[in-house]
Amino acid sequence: MSVIKEPAGVMNILVTLDQNYVPPLRVMLKSLFNNNPGETFKIYMMHTDIPDEECAKTDSFCRAHGSSLECVRISDEAFSDAPVFRHYTKAMYYRLLAFQLLPGDIGKILYLDPDILVLNGVRPFYDLDIEDYLYAGATHSAFVGITKYVNQIRLGNTDLAEYFNSGVMMMNLEKQREEISEQEIFDYVKEYENVLILPDQDVINALYGKKIRPVDDTVYNYDARLYTIYNLLSGGRQDLDWVMQNTVFLHFCGKSKPWHKASANKFAPLYKHYMVLTERDCSEY
Amino acid sequence: MSVIKEPAGVMNILVTLDQNYVPPLRVMLKSLFNNNPGETFKIYMMHTDIPDEECAKTDSFCRAHGSSLECVRISDEAFSDAPVFRHYTKAMYYRLLAFQLLPGDIGKILYLDPDILVLNGVRPFYDLDIEDYLYAGATHSAFVGITKYVNQIRLGNTDLAEYFNSGVMMMNLEKQREEISEQEIFDYVKEYENVLILPDQDVINALYGKKIRPVDDTVYNYDARLYTIYNLLSGGRQDLDWVMQNTVFLHFCGKSKPWHKASANKFAPLYKHYMVLTERDCSEY
Repeated sequence: MSVIKEPAGVMNILVTLDQNYVPPLRVMLKSLFNNNPGETFKIYMMHTDIPDEECAKTDSFCRAHGSSLECVRISDEAFSDAPVFRHYTKAMYYRLLAFQLLPGDIGKILYLDPDILVLNGVRPFYDLDIEDYLYAGATHSAFVGITKYVNQIRLGNTDLAEYFNSGVMMMNLEKQREEISEQEIFDYVKEYENVLILPDQDVINALYGKKIRPVDDTVYNYDARLYTIYNLLSGGRQDLDWVMQNTVFLHFCGKSKPWHKASANKFAPLYKHYMVLTERDCSEY
Repeated sequence: MSVIKEPAGVMNILVTLDQNYVPPLRVMLKSLFNNNPGETFKIYMMHTDIPDEECAKTDSFCRAHGSSLECVRISDEAFSDAPVFRHYTKAMYYRLLAFQLLPGDIGKILYLDPDILVLNGVRPFYDLDIEDYLYAGATHSAFVGITKYVNQIRLGNTDLAEYFNSGVMMMNLEKQREEISEQEIFDYVKEYENVLILPDQDVINALYGKKIRPVDDTVYNYDARLYTIYNLLSGGRQDLDWVMQNTVFLHFCGKSKPWHKASANKFAPLYKHYMVLTERDCSEY
Protein backbone atom coordinates (compact mmCIF):
# COMPACT_ATOMS: atom_id res chain seq x y z
CA MET A 1 0.00 0.00 0.00
CA SER A 2 1.40 3.38 -1.01
CA VAL A 3 2.21 5.99 1.59
CA ILE A 4 -0.32 8.81 1.40
CA LYS A 5 0.81 12.25 2.46
CA GLU A 6 -1.82 14.91 2.84
CA PRO A 7 -1.97 18.24 4.67
CA ALA A 8 -3.03 17.43 8.20
CA GLY A 9 -6.58 18.39 8.97
CA VAL A 10 -7.72 19.41 5.49
CA MET A 11 -10.72 17.38 4.40
CA ASN A 12 -11.16 16.41 0.74
CA ILE A 13 -14.64 16.75 -0.72
CA LEU A 14 -15.68 15.38 -4.11
CA VAL A 15 -18.61 16.70 -6.10
CA THR A 16 -19.49 15.73 -9.66
CA LEU A 17 -22.07 17.77 -11.48
CA ASP A 18 -23.15 19.61 -14.59
CA GLN A 19 -23.59 23.35 -14.75
CA ASN A 20 -27.29 23.25 -13.83
CA TYR A 21 -26.30 22.07 -10.38
CA VAL A 22 -23.84 24.84 -9.57
CA PRO A 23 -26.42 26.91 -7.61
CA PRO A 24 -27.44 24.05 -5.28
CA LEU A 25 -23.78 23.02 -5.00
CA ARG A 26 -22.98 26.46 -3.58
CA VAL A 27 -25.83 26.13 -1.08
CA MET A 28 -24.47 22.75 -0.02
CA LEU A 29 -20.99 24.24 0.37
CA LYS A 30 -22.33 27.24 2.31
CA SER A 31 -23.97 24.88 4.80
CA LEU A 32 -20.79 22.78 4.94
CA PHE A 33 -18.65 25.83 5.73
CA ASN A 34 -21.12 27.39 8.19
CA ASN A 35 -21.62 24.25 10.20
CA ASN A 36 -17.97 23.21 10.31
CA PRO A 37 -16.33 26.26 11.85
CA GLY A 38 -12.57 25.97 12.11
CA GLU A 39 -12.34 23.23 9.45
CA THR A 40 -10.65 23.56 6.07
CA PHE A 41 -11.86 21.78 2.96
CA LYS A 42 -10.40 21.10 -0.43
CA ILE A 43 -13.28 20.72 -2.84
CA TYR A 44 -12.71 18.72 -6.04
CA MET A 45 -15.38 19.67 -8.56
CA MET A 46 -15.47 17.13 -11.38
CA HIS A 47 -17.37 18.19 -14.48
CA THR A 48 -17.31 18.64 -18.26
CA ASP A 49 -19.36 21.74 -18.98
CA ILE A 50 -19.05 24.29 -16.17
CA PRO A 51 -17.89 27.63 -17.62
CA ASP A 52 -14.60 29.04 -16.35
CA GLU A 53 -16.27 32.07 -14.79
CA GLU A 54 -18.56 29.84 -12.73
CA CYS A 55 -15.54 27.85 -11.55
CA ALA A 56 -13.77 31.09 -10.62
CA LYS A 57 -16.82 32.41 -8.77
CA THR A 58 -17.19 29.17 -6.84
CA ASP A 59 -13.47 29.24 -6.06
CA SER A 60 -13.73 32.80 -4.66
CA PHE A 61 -16.68 31.65 -2.59
CA CYS A 62 -14.66 28.74 -1.15
CA ARG A 63 -11.64 30.94 -0.46
CA ALA A 64 -13.81 33.49 1.35
CA HIS A 65 -14.61 30.63 3.73
CA GLY A 66 -10.99 29.58 4.18
CA SER A 67 -11.29 26.57 1.88
CA SER A 68 -10.31 25.99 -1.74
CA LEU A 69 -11.68 24.58 -4.96
CA GLU A 70 -10.00 22.39 -7.54
CA CYS A 71 -11.89 22.25 -10.83
CA VAL A 72 -11.31 18.87 -12.45
CA ARG A 73 -12.53 19.15 -16.01
CA ILE A 74 -12.95 15.78 -17.70
CA SER A 75 -12.39 15.98 -21.44
CA ASP A 76 -14.84 14.49 -23.89
CA GLU A 77 -12.16 12.03 -24.94
CA ALA A 78 -11.97 10.38 -21.51
CA PHE A 79 -13.26 6.81 -21.22
CA SER A 80 -13.40 6.40 -24.97
CA ASP A 81 -14.45 2.79 -24.52
CA ALA A 82 -17.02 3.39 -21.78
CA PRO A 83 -20.54 2.23 -22.60
CA VAL A 84 -23.26 4.90 -22.55
CA PHE A 85 -27.00 4.29 -22.93
CA ARG A 86 -30.35 6.07 -22.83
CA HIS A 87 -29.88 9.69 -21.67
CA TYR A 88 -26.87 8.92 -19.48
CA THR A 89 -23.51 10.42 -20.40
CA LYS A 90 -20.02 9.43 -19.39
CA ALA A 91 -20.48 11.66 -16.37
CA MET A 92 -22.09 8.63 -14.72
CA TYR A 93 -18.55 7.23 -14.34
CA TYR A 94 -17.00 10.20 -12.54
CA ARG A 95 -18.00 9.04 -9.10
CA LEU A 96 -17.22 5.39 -9.86
CA LEU A 97 -13.80 6.12 -11.32
CA ALA A 98 -12.86 9.12 -9.18
CA PHE A 99 -9.98 7.04 -7.80
CA GLN A 100 -8.22 7.22 -11.16
CA LEU A 101 -9.30 10.76 -12.08
CA LEU A 102 -8.11 12.41 -8.85
CA PRO A 103 -4.44 13.03 -7.98
CA GLY A 104 -2.77 9.81 -6.84
CA ASP A 105 -1.70 11.23 -3.50
CA ILE A 106 -5.23 11.57 -2.16
CA GLY A 107 -5.96 8.71 0.22
CA LYS A 108 -9.61 9.34 0.91
CA ILE A 109 -12.35 11.74 -0.06
CA LEU A 110 -15.91 12.49 0.98
CA TYR A 111 -18.31 12.38 -1.96
CA LEU A 112 -21.41 14.59 -1.59
CA ASP A 113 -24.40 15.11 -3.87
CA PRO A 114 -25.23 18.78 -4.40
CA ASP A 115 -28.83 18.38 -3.14
CA ILE A 116 -27.72 18.23 0.47
CA LEU A 117 -27.67 20.55 3.46
CA VAL A 118 -24.82 19.90 5.89
CA LEU A 119 -26.15 20.66 9.38
CA ASN A 120 -23.40 19.50 11.71
CA GLY A 121 -19.72 18.62 11.81
CA VAL A 122 -18.51 16.13 9.20
CA ARG A 123 -15.27 15.28 11.06
CA PRO A 124 -16.55 12.09 12.76
CA PHE A 125 -17.65 10.65 9.41
CA TYR A 126 -14.46 11.74 7.65
CA ASP A 127 -12.28 10.19 10.34
CA LEU A 128 -14.33 6.99 10.64
CA ASP A 129 -12.07 3.93 10.54
CA ILE A 130 -13.02 2.63 7.12
CA GLU A 131 -10.78 -0.45 7.58
CA ASP A 132 -10.58 -2.42 4.35
CA TYR A 133 -13.95 -1.29 3.04
CA LEU A 134 -14.02 0.56 -0.28
CA TYR A 135 -16.70 2.97 0.90
CA ALA A 136 -18.72 4.00 3.90
CA GLY A 137 -22.33 4.92 3.26
CA ALA A 138 -25.94 4.51 4.32
CA THR A 139 -29.02 2.68 3.16
CA HIS A 140 -32.31 4.50 3.49
CA SER A 141 -33.67 2.38 6.29
CA ALA A 142 -37.16 3.81 6.25
CA PHE A 143 -37.56 3.77 2.50
CA VAL A 144 -40.31 1.47 1.33
CA GLY A 145 -39.83 1.83 -2.41
CA ILE A 146 -37.84 -0.79 -4.28
CA THR A 147 -37.19 -3.68 -1.92
CA LYS A 148 -34.01 -5.60 -1.35
CA TYR A 149 -35.36 -8.61 -3.25
CA VAL A 150 -36.35 -6.64 -6.30
CA ASN A 151 -32.88 -5.12 -6.35
CA GLN A 152 -31.22 -8.54 -5.97
CA ILE A 153 -33.01 -9.78 -9.05
CA ARG A 154 -32.73 -6.55 -11.01
CA LEU A 155 -29.00 -6.13 -10.46
CA GLY A 156 -28.13 -9.84 -10.73
CA ASN A 157 -26.56 -10.02 -7.27
CA THR A 158 -28.28 -12.32 -4.78
CA ASP A 159 -25.67 -11.41 -2.19
CA LEU A 160 -26.99 -7.86 -2.09
CA ALA A 161 -27.99 -7.46 1.54
CA GLU A 162 -28.92 -3.80 1.42
CA TYR A 163 -29.21 -1.08 -1.17
CA PHE A 164 -26.99 1.87 -0.38
CA ASN A 165 -27.69 5.45 -1.34
CA SER A 166 -24.61 6.79 -3.08
CA GLY A 167 -25.31 10.48 -2.39
CA VAL A 168 -23.01 10.56 0.63
CA MET A 169 -20.00 8.27 0.64
CA MET A 170 -16.60 8.19 2.24
CA MET A 171 -14.32 6.82 -0.44
CA ASN A 172 -11.28 4.79 0.44
CA LEU A 173 -9.34 5.78 -2.69
CA GLU A 174 -6.21 3.85 -1.73
CA LYS A 175 -8.15 0.62 -1.50
CA GLN A 176 -10.23 1.43 -4.58
CA ARG A 177 -7.08 1.86 -6.67
CA GLU A 178 -6.09 -1.66 -5.68
CA GLU A 179 -9.43 -3.36 -6.07
CA ILE A 180 -11.70 -1.60 -8.52
CA SER A 181 -11.31 -2.31 -12.21
CA GLU A 182 -12.60 0.08 -14.83
CA GLN A 183 -13.16 -2.87 -17.15
CA GLU A 184 -15.26 -4.72 -14.61
CA ILE A 185 -17.54 -1.69 -14.34
CA PHE A 186 -17.83 -1.25 -18.11
CA ASP A 187 -18.59 -4.96 -18.55
CA TYR A 188 -21.26 -4.85 -15.87
CA VAL A 189 -22.92 -1.82 -17.41
CA LYS A 190 -22.93 -3.41 -20.87
CA GLU A 191 -24.65 -6.49 -19.50
CA TYR A 192 -27.18 -4.78 -17.25
CA GLU A 193 -27.87 -1.44 -18.94
CA ASN A 194 -31.53 -2.30 -19.52
CA VAL A 195 -32.25 -2.61 -15.80
CA LEU A 196 -30.14 0.24 -14.46
CA ILE A 197 -32.25 3.02 -12.95
CA LEU A 198 -29.64 5.14 -11.17
CA PRO A 199 -26.62 3.76 -12.99
CA ASP A 200 -23.73 4.75 -10.74
CA GLN A 201 -25.61 3.91 -7.55
CA ASP A 202 -26.75 0.60 -9.04
CA VAL A 203 -23.21 -0.30 -10.09
CA ILE A 204 -21.73 0.52 -6.69
CA ASN A 205 -24.36 -1.66 -5.03
CA ALA A 206 -24.18 -4.53 -7.49
CA LEU A 207 -20.40 -4.81 -7.63
CA TYR A 208 -19.26 -3.43 -4.27
CA GLY A 209 -22.28 -3.64 -1.97
CA LYS A 210 -20.43 -6.00 0.36
CA LYS A 211 -17.51 -3.61 0.59
CA ILE A 212 -19.44 -0.63 1.90
CA ARG A 213 -19.17 0.04 5.57
CA PRO A 214 -22.72 0.81 6.68
CA VAL A 215 -23.43 3.95 8.69
CA ASP A 216 -26.64 5.33 10.19
CA ASP A 217 -28.70 7.12 7.55
CA THR A 218 -30.50 9.31 10.10
CA VAL A 219 -27.12 10.86 10.87
CA TYR A 220 -25.19 10.57 7.60
CA ASN A 221 -27.76 10.48 4.84
CA TYR A 222 -31.14 11.59 6.14
CA ASP A 223 -33.80 11.36 3.45
CA ALA A 224 -35.47 14.77 3.85
CA ARG A 225 -38.81 13.39 2.60
CA LEU A 226 -39.09 10.94 5.47
CA TYR A 227 -39.21 13.02 8.64
CA THR A 228 -42.52 11.57 9.79
CA ILE A 229 -41.43 7.98 9.15
CA TYR A 230 -38.02 8.33 10.84
CA ASN A 231 -39.67 9.96 13.84
CA LEU A 232 -42.31 7.25 14.11
CA LEU A 233 -39.82 4.40 13.68
CA SER A 234 -37.69 5.84 16.47
CA GLY A 235 -40.64 6.10 18.83
CA GLY A 236 -40.54 9.87 18.73
CA ARG A 237 -36.88 10.08 19.69
CA GLN A 238 -35.78 11.47 16.34
CA ASP A 239 -37.89 14.60 16.52
CA LEU A 240 -36.96 17.93 14.97
CA ASP A 241 -34.62 18.87 17.80
CA TRP A 242 -32.81 15.57 17.39
CA VAL A 243 -32.44 16.07 13.64
CA MET A 244 -31.07 19.58 13.99
CA GLN A 245 -28.63 18.48 16.70
CA ASN A 246 -27.48 15.19 15.18
CA THR A 247 -28.10 14.88 11.47
CA VAL A 248 -25.00 15.74 9.50
CA PHE A 249 -26.25 15.31 5.93
CA LEU A 250 -29.85 16.23 5.15
CA HIS A 251 -30.38 14.80 1.68
CA PHE A 252 -33.17 16.12 -0.53
CA CYS A 253 -33.68 12.90 -2.48
CA GLY A 254 -36.22 12.51 -5.23
CA LYS A 255 -37.48 14.69 -8.03
CA SER A 256 -39.08 17.43 -5.94
CA LYS A 257 -36.28 19.74 -4.83
CA PRO A 258 -36.33 22.31 -2.04
CA TRP A 259 -35.15 25.08 -4.36
CA HIS A 260 -38.34 24.70 -6.41
CA LYS A 261 -40.89 27.43 -5.86
CA ALA A 262 -43.64 25.09 -4.73
CA SER A 263 -41.60 22.79 -2.51
CA ALA A 264 -43.70 21.48 0.35
CA ASN A 265 -40.74 19.78 2.00
CA LYS A 266 -40.68 20.15 5.76
CA PHE A 267 -37.13 21.48 5.54
CA ALA A 268 -37.76 23.87 2.62
CA PRO A 269 -37.73 27.00 4.85
CA LEU A 270 -34.31 26.00 6.18
CA TYR A 271 -33.04 25.23 2.68
CA LYS A 272 -34.35 28.50 1.24
CA HIS A 273 -32.74 30.43 4.08
CA TYR A 274 -29.41 28.87 3.10
CA MET A 275 -30.12 29.88 -0.50
CA VAL A 276 -30.40 33.49 0.70
CA LEU A 277 -27.21 33.21 2.77
CA THR A 278 -25.41 31.82 -0.29
CA GLU A 279 -26.75 34.51 -2.60
CA ARG A 280 -25.70 37.18 -0.10
CA ASP A 281 -22.12 35.84 -0.17
CA CYS A 282 -21.93 35.28 -3.91
CA SER A 283 -23.22 38.75 -4.72
CA GLU A 284 -19.96 40.04 -3.27
CA TYR A 285 -17.77 38.53 -6.01
CA MET B 1 -34.96 69.31 20.92
CA SER B 2 -31.72 68.03 22.41
CA VAL B 3 -28.75 67.18 20.23
CA ILE B 4 -28.21 63.44 20.18
CA LYS B 5 -24.68 62.19 19.63
CA GLU B 6 -24.21 58.50 18.99
CA PRO B 7 -21.43 56.42 17.44
CA ALA B 8 -22.07 56.42 13.71
CA GLY B 9 -23.42 53.15 12.42
CA VAL B 10 -23.97 51.36 15.70
CA MET B 11 -27.59 50.26 16.05
CA ASN B 12 -29.26 50.23 19.46
CA ILE B 13 -31.42 47.23 20.30
CA LEU B 14 -33.71 47.02 23.32
CA VAL B 15 -34.88 43.77 24.86
CA THR B 16 -36.81 43.41 28.11
CA LEU B 17 -37.17 39.97 29.61
CA ASP B 18 -37.01 37.72 32.62
CA GLN B 19 -34.44 34.98 33.01
CA ASN B 20 -36.64 32.29 31.44
CA TYR B 21 -36.31 34.08 28.15
CA VAL B 22 -32.51 34.28 28.04
CA PRO B 23 -32.15 31.15 25.82
CA PRO B 24 -34.56 32.39 23.11
CA LEU B 25 -33.03 35.86 23.42
CA ARG B 26 -29.66 34.41 22.45
CA VAL B 27 -31.22 32.64 19.46
CA MET B 28 -32.77 35.93 18.37
CA LEU B 29 -29.40 37.68 18.76
CA LYS B 30 -27.59 34.91 16.88
CA SER B 31 -29.95 35.37 13.93
CA LEU B 32 -29.58 39.16 14.18
CA PHE B 33 -25.78 38.91 14.05
CA ASN B 34 -25.66 36.23 11.33
CA ASN B 35 -28.00 38.04 9.00
CA ASN B 36 -26.52 41.48 9.47
CA PRO B 37 -22.90 40.92 8.52
CA GLY B 38 -20.75 44.01 8.93
CA GLU B 39 -23.18 45.71 11.33
CA THR B 40 -22.51 46.51 14.97
CA PHE B 41 -25.16 46.45 17.65
CA LYS B 42 -25.41 47.73 21.17
CA ILE B 43 -27.92 45.56 22.98
CA TYR B 44 -29.68 47.01 26.03
CA MET B 45 -31.07 44.13 28.10
CA MET B 46 -33.57 45.45 30.63
CA HIS B 47 -34.48 43.05 33.43
CA THR B 48 -34.80 42.51 37.18
CA ASP B 49 -33.83 38.90 37.79
CA ILE B 50 -31.17 37.74 35.31
CA PRO B 51 -28.16 36.37 37.25
CA ASP B 52 -24.82 38.10 36.71
CA GLU B 53 -23.24 35.02 35.15
CA GLU B 54 -26.00 34.86 32.53
CA CYS B 55 -25.44 38.55 31.73
CA ALA B 56 -21.70 37.91 31.42
CA LYS B 57 -22.23 34.89 29.17
CA THR B 58 -24.59 36.84 26.93
CA ASP B 59 -22.09 39.71 26.85
CA SER B 60 -19.30 37.34 25.72
CA PHE B 61 -21.62 35.99 23.07
CA CYS B 62 -22.33 39.52 21.79
CA ARG B 63 -18.66 40.48 21.83
CA ALA B 64 -17.71 37.35 19.88
CA HIS B 65 -19.97 38.76 17.16
CA GLY B 66 -18.45 42.24 17.28
CA SER B 67 -21.35 43.75 19.22
CA SER B 68 -21.85 44.56 22.89
CA LEU B 69 -24.37 44.15 25.67
CA GLU B 70 -25.47 46.61 28.30
CA CYS B 71 -27.34 44.98 31.17
CA VAL B 72 -29.85 47.44 32.59
CA ARG B 73 -31.04 46.02 35.88
CA ILE B 74 -34.19 47.71 37.16
CA SER B 75 -34.37 47.69 40.94
CA ASP B 76 -37.46 46.57 42.79
CA GLU B 77 -37.90 50.10 44.05
CA ALA B 78 -38.41 51.58 40.61
CA PHE B 79 -41.88 52.89 39.77
CA SER B 80 -42.96 52.71 43.39
CA ASP B 81 -46.31 54.25 42.46
CA ALA B 82 -46.93 52.12 39.36
CA PRO B 83 -50.15 50.09 39.42
CA VAL B 84 -49.77 46.32 39.13
CA PHE B 85 -52.60 43.81 38.77
CA ARG B 86 -53.28 40.11 38.24
CA HIS B 87 -50.01 38.29 37.47
CA TYR B 88 -48.36 41.27 35.83
CA THR B 89 -45.31 42.80 37.45
CA LYS B 90 -43.72 46.18 37.00
CA ALA B 91 -41.76 44.66 34.15
CA MET B 92 -44.74 45.52 31.97
CA TYR B 93 -43.59 49.14 32.13
CA TYR B 94 -40.03 48.58 30.90
CA ARG B 95 -40.92 48.85 27.25
CA LEU B 96 -43.35 51.72 27.82
CA LEU B 97 -40.96 53.75 29.93
CA ALA B 98 -37.69 52.75 28.27
CA PHE B 99 -37.24 56.39 27.24
CA GLN B 100 -36.65 57.34 30.87
CA LEU B 101 -34.74 54.19 31.88
CA LEU B 102 -32.19 54.31 29.07
CA PRO B 103 -29.28 56.79 28.93
CA GLY B 104 -30.49 60.20 27.83
CA ASP B 105 -28.14 60.42 24.88
CA ILE B 106 -29.82 57.62 22.94
CA GLY B 107 -32.02 59.08 20.25
CA LYS B 108 -33.67 55.94 18.96
CA ILE B 109 -33.71 52.22 19.62
CA LEU B 110 -35.14 49.11 18.04
CA TYR B 111 -37.24 47.11 20.47
CA LEU B 112 -37.40 43.36 19.75
CA ASP B 113 -39.26 40.55 21.50
CA PRO B 114 -37.06 37.51 22.18
CA ASP B 115 -39.36 35.12 20.27
CA ILE B 116 -38.15 36.39 16.92
CA LEU B 117 -35.79 35.20 14.19
CA VAL B 118 -34.09 38.00 12.27
CA LEU B 119 -33.71 36.79 8.68
CA ASN B 120 -32.47 39.84 6.79
CA GLY B 121 -30.84 43.21 7.29
CA VAL B 122 -32.48 45.51 9.84
CA ARG B 123 -30.80 48.68 8.53
CA PRO B 124 -33.72 49.87 6.35
CA PHE B 125 -36.09 49.67 9.32
CA TYR B 126 -33.62 51.26 11.70
CA ASP B 127 -32.97 54.15 9.32
CA LEU B 128 -36.62 54.65 8.38
CA ASP B 129 -37.60 58.31 8.62
CA ILE B 130 -39.80 58.14 11.69
CA GLU B 131 -40.69 61.85 11.38
CA ASP B 132 -42.66 62.98 14.41
CA TYR B 133 -44.11 59.58 15.18
CA LEU B 134 -43.33 58.06 18.59
CA TYR B 135 -42.93 54.59 17.15
CA ALA B 136 -42.85 52.62 13.94
CA GLY B 137 -44.49 49.22 13.99
CA ALA B 138 -46.84 46.80 12.27
CA THR B 139 -50.35 45.52 12.69
CA HIS B 140 -50.94 41.87 11.95
CA SER B 141 -52.91 42.42 8.78
CA ALA B 142 -53.98 38.83 8.31
CA PHE B 143 -54.92 38.23 11.90
CA VAL B 144 -58.57 37.48 12.37
CA GLY B 145 -58.66 37.31 16.17
CA ILE B 146 -59.80 40.33 18.14
CA THR B 147 -61.17 42.86 15.68
CA LYS B 148 -60.56 46.56 15.52
CA TYR B 149 -64.06 47.30 16.87
CA VAL B 150 -63.73 45.02 19.86
CA ASN B 151 -60.43 46.71 20.67
CA GLN B 152 -61.94 50.19 20.28
CA ILE B 153 -64.59 49.37 22.86
CA ARG B 154 -62.28 47.34 25.12
CA LEU B 155 -59.57 49.99 25.30
CA GLY B 156 -61.91 52.96 25.38
CA ASN B 157 -60.45 54.57 22.28
CA THR B 158 -62.83 54.95 19.34
CA ASP B 159 -60.04 56.61 17.34
CA LEU B 160 -58.13 53.33 17.30
CA ALA B 161 -57.78 52.59 13.59
CA GLU B 162 -55.56 49.56 13.87
CA TYR B 163 -54.14 47.37 16.58
CA PHE B 164 -50.36 47.29 16.46
CA ASN B 165 -48.23 44.39 17.60
CA SER B 166 -45.62 45.75 19.96
CA GLY B 167 -43.10 42.92 19.49
CA VAL B 168 -41.06 44.88 16.94
CA MET B 169 -40.95 48.65 17.28
CA MET B 170 -38.64 51.45 16.31
CA MET B 171 -38.76 53.85 19.23
CA ASN B 172 -38.28 57.54 18.73
CA LEU B 173 -36.89 58.12 22.23
CA GLU B 174 -36.26 61.83 21.67
CA LYS B 175 -39.88 62.41 20.82
CA GLN B 176 -41.11 60.05 23.54
CA ARG B 177 -39.21 62.01 26.19
CA GLU B 178 -41.11 65.09 25.09
CA GLU B 179 -44.55 63.59 24.74
CA ILE B 180 -45.05 60.52 26.89
CA SER B 181 -46.01 60.95 30.52
CA GLU B 182 -45.48 58.21 33.06
CA GLN B 183 -48.49 59.47 34.98
CA GLU B 184 -50.75 59.26 31.96
CA ILE B 185 -49.79 55.61 31.55
CA PHE B 186 -50.33 54.78 35.21
CA ASP B 187 -53.70 56.52 35.19
CA TYR B 188 -54.78 54.63 32.09
CA VAL B 189 -53.77 51.28 33.57
CA LYS B 190 -55.63 51.99 36.83
CA GLU B 191 -58.80 52.77 34.89
CA TYR B 192 -58.64 49.91 32.39
CA GLU B 193 -56.82 47.12 34.21
CA ASN B 194 -59.86 44.84 34.04
CA VAL B 195 -59.84 44.78 30.24
CA LEU B 196 -56.12 44.71 29.56
CA ILE B 197 -55.00 41.45 27.94
CA LEU B 198 -51.45 42.24 26.85
CA PRO B 199 -50.99 45.28 29.07
CA ASP B 200 -48.04 47.05 27.46
CA GLN B 201 -49.25 46.42 23.92
CA ASP B 202 -52.76 47.53 24.89
CA VAL B 203 -51.46 50.72 26.48
CA ILE B 204 -49.31 51.63 23.48
CA ASN B 205 -52.29 51.14 21.19
CA ALA B 206 -54.82 52.90 23.39
CA LEU B 207 -52.74 55.97 24.17
CA TYR B 208 -50.36 56.25 21.22
CA GLY B 209 -51.97 54.25 18.39
CA LYS B 210 -52.21 57.38 16.25
CA LYS B 211 -48.54 58.11 16.75
CA ILE B 212 -47.20 54.86 15.39
CA ARG B 213 -45.86 54.95 11.87
CA PRO B 214 -47.27 51.83 10.22
CA VAL B 215 -44.93 49.47 8.39
CA ASP B 216 -45.58 46.25 6.47
CA ASP B 217 -45.96 43.31 8.84
CA THR B 218 -44.94 40.75 6.21
CA VAL B 219 -41.53 42.42 6.19
CA TYR B 220 -41.14 43.80 9.71
CA ASN B 221 -43.31 41.66 11.96
CA TYR B 222 -44.30 38.47 10.16
CA ASP B 223 -46.61 36.36 12.30
CA ALA B 224 -44.96 32.94 11.90
CA ARG B 225 -48.30 31.16 12.41
CA LEU B 226 -49.84 32.75 9.34
CA TYR B 227 -47.74 31.61 6.38
CA THR B 228 -50.69 30.10 4.53
CA ILE B 229 -52.87 33.16 5.05
CA TYR B 230 -50.20 35.68 4.03
CA ASN B 231 -49.42 33.65 0.94
CA LEU B 232 -53.09 33.37 -0.02
CA LEU B 233 -53.80 37.06 0.60
CA SER B 234 -50.87 38.01 -1.62
CA GLY B 235 -52.10 35.79 -4.44
CA GLY B 236 -49.16 33.45 -3.99
CA ARG B 237 -46.56 36.20 -4.26
CA GLN B 238 -45.43 35.87 -0.66
CA ASP B 239 -44.30 32.27 -0.96
CA LEU B 240 -41.45 30.72 1.03
CA ASP B 241 -38.76 32.15 -1.26
CA TRP B 242 -40.24 35.61 -0.81
CA VAL B 243 -40.33 35.26 2.97
CA MET B 244 -36.74 34.09 3.18
CA GLN B 245 -35.58 36.89 0.88
CA ASN B 246 -37.67 39.75 2.28
CA THR B 247 -38.95 39.16 5.78
CA VAL B 248 -36.73 40.82 8.34
CA PHE B 249 -38.48 39.83 11.57
CA LEU B 250 -40.14 36.41 11.77
CA HIS B 251 -42.19 36.65 14.95
CA PHE B 252 -43.31 33.47 16.73
CA CYS B 253 -46.44 34.97 18.27
CA GLY B 254 -48.81 33.04 20.48
CA LYS B 255 -48.42 30.44 23.17
CA SER B 256 -46.92 27.66 21.08
CA LYS B 257 -43.22 28.42 20.70
CA PRO B 258 -40.79 26.98 18.17
CA TRP B 259 -38.37 25.91 20.90
CA HIS B 260 -41.00 23.54 22.29
CA LYS B 261 -40.39 19.89 21.50
CA ALA B 262 -43.69 19.38 19.72
CA SER B 263 -43.77 22.59 17.72
CA ALA B 264 -45.55 22.07 14.43
CA ASN B 265 -44.73 25.55 13.20
CA LYS B 266 -43.72 25.67 9.56
CA PHE B 267 -40.56 27.53 10.53
CA ALA B 268 -39.64 25.28 13.46
CA PRO B 269 -36.81 23.49 11.57
CA LEU B 270 -35.22 26.85 10.80
CA TYR B 271 -35.66 28.02 14.38
CA LYS B 272 -34.24 24.82 15.84
CA HIS B 273 -31.24 25.06 13.51
CA TYR B 274 -30.57 28.52 14.95
CA MET B 275 -30.88 27.02 18.44
CA VAL B 276 -28.07 24.61 17.53
CA LEU B 277 -25.94 27.41 16.05
CA THR B 278 -26.45 29.41 19.25
CA GLU B 279 -25.65 26.48 21.50
CA ARG B 280 -22.50 25.77 19.48
CA ASP B 281 -21.32 29.34 20.08
CA CYS B 282 -22.30 29.53 23.72
CA SER B 283 -20.60 26.26 24.58
CA GLU B 284 -17.33 28.05 23.86
CA TYR B 285 -17.62 30.43 26.81
